[in-house]
Amino acid sequence: MTASLDGADASIVIATDSGGTSTRSVVLRGDGTCLGFGRSGSGNPISAGLGPAARSAADSARTALAAAGVEPREVDTWLMAMAGSVAERDLGAFSEPMRELGVAAPLRYRGDALALFFSGTWEPDGYALIVGTGAVAVRIEAGEVAAVSDGLGWLLGDVGSGFWLGHQVALAALAGPEGRGPQTLLTGLMMAELGIEPHLARGPDGRIELAARTAELIYQGRPVELARFARLAFQATGDAVAEQIVDNAAAALARTLGSVWEPGVAGPVVLGGGVLAANPGFAGRIVAAQPAGVPPRVRLVVDGLPGAALLALAATGRPAGEHAFRRIAQGMLTLGVHGR
Amino acid sequence: MTASLDGADASIVIATDSGGTSTRSVVLRGDGTCLGFGRSGSGNPISAGLGPAARSAADSARTALAAAGVEPREVDTWLMAMAGSVAERDLGAFSEPMRELGVAAPLRYRGDALALFFSGTWEPDGYALIVGTGAVAVRIEAGEVAAVSDGLGWLLGDVGSGFWLGHQVALAALAGPEGRGPQTLLTGLMMAELGIEPHLARGPDGRIELAARTAELIYQGRPVELARFARLAFQATGDAVAEQIVDNAAAALARTLGSVWEPGVAGPVVLGGGVLAANPGFAGRIVAAQPAGVPPRVRLVVDGLPGAALLALAATGRPAGEHAFRRIAQGMLTLGVHGR
Repeated sequence: MTASLDGADASIVIATDSGGTSTRSVVLRGDGTCLGFGRSGSGNPISAGLGPAARSAADSARTALAAAGVEPREVDTWLMAMAGSVAERDLGAFSEPMRELGVAAPLRYRGDALALFFSGTWEPDGYALIVGTGAVAVRIEAGEVAAVSDGLGWLLGDVGSGFWLGHQVALAALAGPEGRGPQTLLTGLMMAELGIEPHLARGPDGRIELAARTAELIYQGRPVELARFARLAFQATGDAVAEQIVDNAAAALARTLGSVWEPGVAGPVVLGGGVLAANPGFAGRIVAAQPAGVPPRVRLVVDGLPGAALLALAATGRPAGEHAFRRIAQGMLTLGVHGR
Repeated sequence: MTASLDGADASIVIATDSGGTSTRSVVLRGDGTCLGFGRSGSGNPISAGLGPAARSAADSARTALAAAGVEPREVDTWLMAMAGSVAERDLGAFSEPMRELGVAAPLRYRGDALALFFSGTWEPDGYALIVGTGAVAVRIEAGEVAAVSDGLGWLLGDVGSGFWLGHQVALAALAGPEGRGPQTLLTGLMMAELGIEPHLARGPDGRIELAARTAELIYQGRPVELARFARLAFQATGDAVAEQIVDNAAAALARTLGSVWEPGVAGPVVLGGGVLAANPGFAGRIVAAQPAGVPPRVRLVVDGLPGAALLALAATGRPAGEHAFRRIAQGMLTLGVHGR
């Protein structure tokens, strides 16, 4: 058994993947054997708020520990993967409910891109492209992020992302009825999604009614919520406007991925994030558009929890290579840990 | 003298133009003779807040009344032009400080597009295209807005506007250094505007430093503040990226204007808003791109105050035609009322 070779069975590790939709934790032995899994609500401090996000992390850990039959005080290492750069004081807020739970191990934080990369490979070098609500590409060297491209958020970048796609859908859906752009199926699809009657008549203020009503609804929400319309671009097959939006997104994401490529760095390309996971054909087009030389080995992963687990093992100081990677993957399959 | 023909010398009218940058009021006799002018701070309830916007309106009116040597209680008609649709309760908030000032006349509200149109003509039919922070086209029939296109705000439209241009500038300025887009002068121009050193090196997190610093600054502000970068697109002459952005804006605005055109409605095309006023060549390209049939009579105006004054005269029930229009224009010239 590899476990005894690693000699790490006694140590207990928790890995947490804090995402906007859910927070998931897994308890492992130091050799990568998965013991228990837990899931809770949103763990993103920006979308959920810092307090609720921190409680989500502790809740998912409590469930995972209970499922594993492990006492909180037995935990040696706790690693959490999360999007964006997290301030030092925010990490303190995350540690608080974990300490109340009885976990004394200090919190180690890693970025979600790194965790996603290690969900697809144990190799120390390579590339990752994550396309969810946002979009970012990274180059990994010696197990660390060496280069980042885009991921600049909805207002300054995230080109080709779920937000970007949804924004383009909204712009096109409203330009059509006003005669500023071509007619498109996206108008009807967006109205259906919003529950708005597709009234094309002008109101007393001279404005086309569906546009006025859409603006009223959208400006009540947060800008990033436009990401909900991204799937309409893929849904409106045969619609020239929708196809152009998807083409533009694929071309932009191909440039983002290509911009972190470095001839001297081989290793796989790991693709992840909600938009790519839901549209493997779209993912394939982005990879196909890469310049010659970009590693052709591509893996599409569903989330960052396996990678967070591998990083947690590595944080114990023991080698976290192919054996641990495969044991984690196998263990999560057995525990029924699928998707977000 | 036309004044005696109109027989309206005795009535006193105030017109207020509430804009994001400043609020301006003019006091007139019923025949269009300008008596006094006043200016104060931002009068936009969204950017300045409802209370401060309302106080700005009253402050500019107080100054205009003092300059005219007119008592507040003498005012028969008060008309205010403002962007967007204003809720009934907001109009109440605007009336409050005016009543405290002693103006008993009820507030009549008209949209800024209509006021801008009547800053350029006294004719009851025609078209207006306003390109400032936002962008909107309207068709005017019988003195009322009959059709609106775009003006849907920064998140859903305003294509080709100051926000749109500034947003495109920011996206291109950051895509260049990251290798996701072509190199462009816009990067250096934007860094200078933000007071950021143009560091192209990667920080310890793998991110190019100028991108990280830009994101930090921009996300502290409001999205519409990106409009400050619009002028950089016009400034970077000879830069292919900047020229493409301006070309795309002109093409989009040409579509917006063309979309309200109706073969049966003649009359002039009035152009206004900060972006067009500052770039007459850009305005010319938008008009030149119009389909055959669009009225070739084009006027570029600086602001909506003369039109608000004409609308205020019309609200007294007396004819507000060419004579009044010319008297207002002449009067504002004499009072030294230029621009915003």
